[in-house]
Amino acid sequence: MVIGTLASHSALQIMRGAKDEGFKTLLVCDRKRKKFYERFKLADEYIIVNEFREMLNEDIQQKLIDKGVVMVPHGSFVEYVGAKNLLEFKVPIYGNKGVLEWESDRKKEQKWFKRAGVRVPREFKDPKDIDRLAIVKYEGAKGGMGYVLVKSEKEFQEKVKNFDREKMMIQEYIVGTRFYPHFFWSPLSDENELMGMDIRYEANADGLSRVPIDLPPTYVVTGNLPVVMRESLLPDVFDLADGVVRASQELFYPGLIGPYCLELVCTDKLELFLFEVSARIVAGTNVWIPGSPYTHLKHGKDISTGRRIAMEIKRAIEEHRLNQVIS
Amino acid sequence: MVIGTLASHSALQIMRGAKDEGFKTLLVCDRKRKKFYERFKLADEYIIVNEFREMLNEDIQQKLIDKGVVMVPHGSFVEYVGAKNLLEFKVPIYGNKGVLEWESDRKKEQKWFKRAGVRVPREFKDPKDIDRLAIVKYEGAKGGMGYVLVKSEKEFQEKVKNFDREKMMIQEYIVGTRFYPHFFWSPLSDENELMGMDIRYEANADGLSRVPIDLPPTYVVTGNLPVVMRESLLPDVFDLADGVVRASQELFYPGLIGPYCLELVCTDKLELFLFEVSARIVAGTNVWIPGSPYTHLKHGKDISTGRRIAMEIKRAIEEHRLNQVIS
Amino acid sequence: MVIGTLASHSALQIMRGAKDEGFKTLLVCDRKRKKFYERFKLADEYIIVNEFREMLNEDIQQKLIDKGVVMVPHGSFVEYVGAKNLLEFKVPIYGNKGVLEWESDRKKEQKWFKRAGVRVPREFKDPKDIDRLAIVKYEGAKGGMGYVLVKSEKEFQEKVKNFDREKMMIQEYIVGTRFYPHFFWSPLSDENELMGMDIRYEANADGLSRVPIDLPPTYVVTGNLPVVMRESLLPDVFDLADGVVRASQELFYPGLIGPYCLELVCTDKLELFLFEVSARIVAGTNVWIPGSPYTHLKHGKDISTGRRIAMEIKRAIEEHRLNQVIS
Repeated sequence: MVIGTLASHSALQIMRGAKDEGFKTLLVCDRKRKKFYERFKLADEYIIVNEFREMLNEDIQQKLIDKGVVMVPHGSFVEYVGAKNLLEFKVPIYGNKGVLEWESDRKKEQKWFKRAGVRVPREFKDPKDIDRLAIVKYEGAKGGMGYVLVKSEKEFQEKVKNFDREKMMIQEYIVGTRFYPHFFWSPLSDENELMGMDIRYEANADGLSRVPIDLPPTYVVTGNLPVVMRESLLPDVFDLADGVVRASQELFYPGLIGPYCLELVCTDKLELFLFEVSARIVAGTNVWIPGSPYTHLKHGKDISTGRRIAMEIKRAIEEHRLNQVIS
Repeated sequence: MVIGTLASHSALQIMRGAKDEGFKTLLVCDRKRKKFYERFKLADEYIIVNEFREMLNEDIQQKLIDKGVVMVPHGSFVEYVGAKNLLEFKVPIYGNKGVLEWESDRKKEQKWFKRAGVRVPREFKDPKDIDRLAIVKYEGAKGGMGYVLVKSEKEFQEKVKNFDREKMMIQEYIVGTRFYPHFFWSPLSDENELMGMDIRYEANADGLSRVPIDLPPTYVVTGNLPVVMRESLLPDVFDLADGVVRASQELFYPGLIGPYCLELVCTDKLELFLFEVSARIVAGTNVWIPGSPYTHLKHGKDISTGRRIAMEIKRAIEEHRLNQVIS
Repeated sequence: MVIGTLASHSALQIMRGAKDEGFKTLLVCDRKRKKFYERFKLADEYIIVNEFREMLNEDIQQKLIDKGVVMVPHGSFVEYVGAKNLLEFKVPIYGNKGVLEWESDRKKEQKWFKRAGVRVPREFKDPKDIDRLAIVKYEGAKGGMGYVLVKSEKEFQEKVKNFDREKMMIQEYIVGTRFYPHFFWSPLSDENELMGMDIRYEANADGLSRVPIDLPPTYVVTGNLPVVMRESLLPDVFDLADGVVRASQELFYPGLIGPYCLELVCTDKLELFLFEVSARIVAGTNVWIPGSPYTHLKHGKDISTGRRIAMEIKRAIEEHRLNQVIS
């Protein structure tokens, strides 16, 4: 079996993890990035495309199937291919490809969180209801580009002009520290594992605070910073994670499989708010290659999320349970 | 011998370190956190309590003594049990339990720093003296909750109403970068070791700077970030640490034993100010599991503070010097 | 052969790397820092000086030559000895000592960047031209001390009074996230390797954003924070690095050798601006001891920049190509 992925996001980590577990690797790569990926010598084989969407082409799908590839999806994978298109993708996908539709559709996501019984920021259905600091988010916003902060309906009307209201969410902005814990739910061991945590490093918000100028902040993810959380908050985080997994199984069986990430804010009352879930490996896991404090606590050794994926596939093969981890 | 601790703060790290050095582990845990700690499979045995203060009960102390447990104290341990109660605790405690009274009593702490000859922020005995930005701190403030910034007596009177002035400290607020270097003083090797450094990640101060709103910052510790310090400042940091250890030996023999943390601010003139000492393992050490740049420089391998504690106890047993590291 | 360096900056890392690769080490150290360095037991031998500039003395140079030392330069090395003096230094230096003159002379540096074809912040030759936020930088400014932000000529005239205009640069201030990727160019393997990335932790800028006071920020480097970059930006970063190396070979053969660092800002349009190059090991590499996510991806194991230097010297000796890596 070959582990494949798309040349972006966390592809290096996925391939390194695959090789560390003895798999062959394949990279679907565009022409101009090939030189970059070759520097790391992690792909045993390349399929070169002009655009990532070509991965949907019949012939490329057939090639991947013929080579026995399991594709590992990541954020760019979902973004370029589209969650809906993925449902008709014939190549075996690691994880439950149905989940990607639930994470990329904000209405479905809200239903999911409600079922999970987790604390979420208040949502304003109508701009008229905005009575505190709120963030306006777009479905499919690329890396936080286009997020806008508003304090009132008036400010909303001024700042938000060309938006498609159907694909937009207005959410209470919770002031606090951000945490993006990376989890891994294994149907093979029936366990929820904490793999690491990061903070997103965003332009220009994380640059603005250092200069005495008055500009509206933007929230484009440019990188990630490592963080650990106060240990006394971790039981709450695991309860949240368990709730999210359980609800996913109830709403779209078999639910979440493998890596996912909770996007949390912690207030100064030590209350955690969940504002989004990423239902696949997140780029923040790149800060914890080859391992994190949390994987060391649990396993006594370094395990990145990329490697954890490969370990899971390997075990599934050995135990003839591949159907439980791919779709 | 069994290494035990209380189920919070840095308990996972302490137990992982103990197991890595071949010890059995015991966790005093409350009912609702048990599920969380079981996920990590680090405790060989649990003593379940309803409240952490029950650890002071005669029967639980006897149970711990019968099982041959050495308890490793941490921040939550001191907070829940109380530094004074600890003095009458009969179970062997790793480190000098007398020191915990010195770190939790601000007046004793100031005396200690004076003896150490270190540079500290100016203290304002009377609110009338406030002539620059100052921070008002509470004895036993939980995770920075309730710290208040004031610029003048007037602002103090407005903001600080219900405080107990006896248990409060008004301290000059030094603007600069914060560093929390983690040290380990070993009476066995007669050495002061630098184990790592962190920055506290605080709500809502570390969230506020990213949004254009005007709210008073609060300083509740929610997590920790890794950091390294300019190498040319490290000799000063070690001098500080040596002074603090030496003064502790003079004031309350045998003084500090094992892990402790200096809370420093570095100004843009590269002057270091000491504003607090934690006289036991700090939660910031969790960012450097399994090891830090500094432990790698010294030992050529990964050593967390939790593991360093276990190494020290092991050596003390082998050299029949346990009395030098427990109290 | 003995690997030597000066007792500051990244000396611990350089010596640890040397020892890990089996070299003997020598440290040129001032009297008052000796105690500090001895704690780490990394120097096999010390040459004690009163001032680092004494390293230029004939007798000390002869001693270093007699002992077969290759000196590894770092930021403090260049600062204390002077890039020009280094050119007449007779002791073998790791890397191309000519490059240090190019990085410390802003005019030469600008010529270098232009040849590399990289995107740089706009430079204002005349204060009259300042039409946006700009930063005024000094040649040889120590750790960012003395950098000043201005928005207009008027503000420039007010704030910048005693500056020597000849040694000053007025540069557009790009708002965004900062990244300091650490590279290693090996003439032996003909490869550009990414070793890690950091963010500088600066006083008082990184303290000011947390308190509600209005003070002008300063940018004195006091430490470093680890960071990883969005994978889709890395091909651009490598293109930049390749351009900088190629231009260095064209302008001052053999150009850059070994470790160097790009100082980048990433805007919310995901455009990267290069604002400086450090043509030797930077202190930010200290965050990635013993290794980084990037070295793990490439090599499958931990390699610090200090160790990478020692690996390169070792290979050069084995392949009789020392002349390609020292000068």
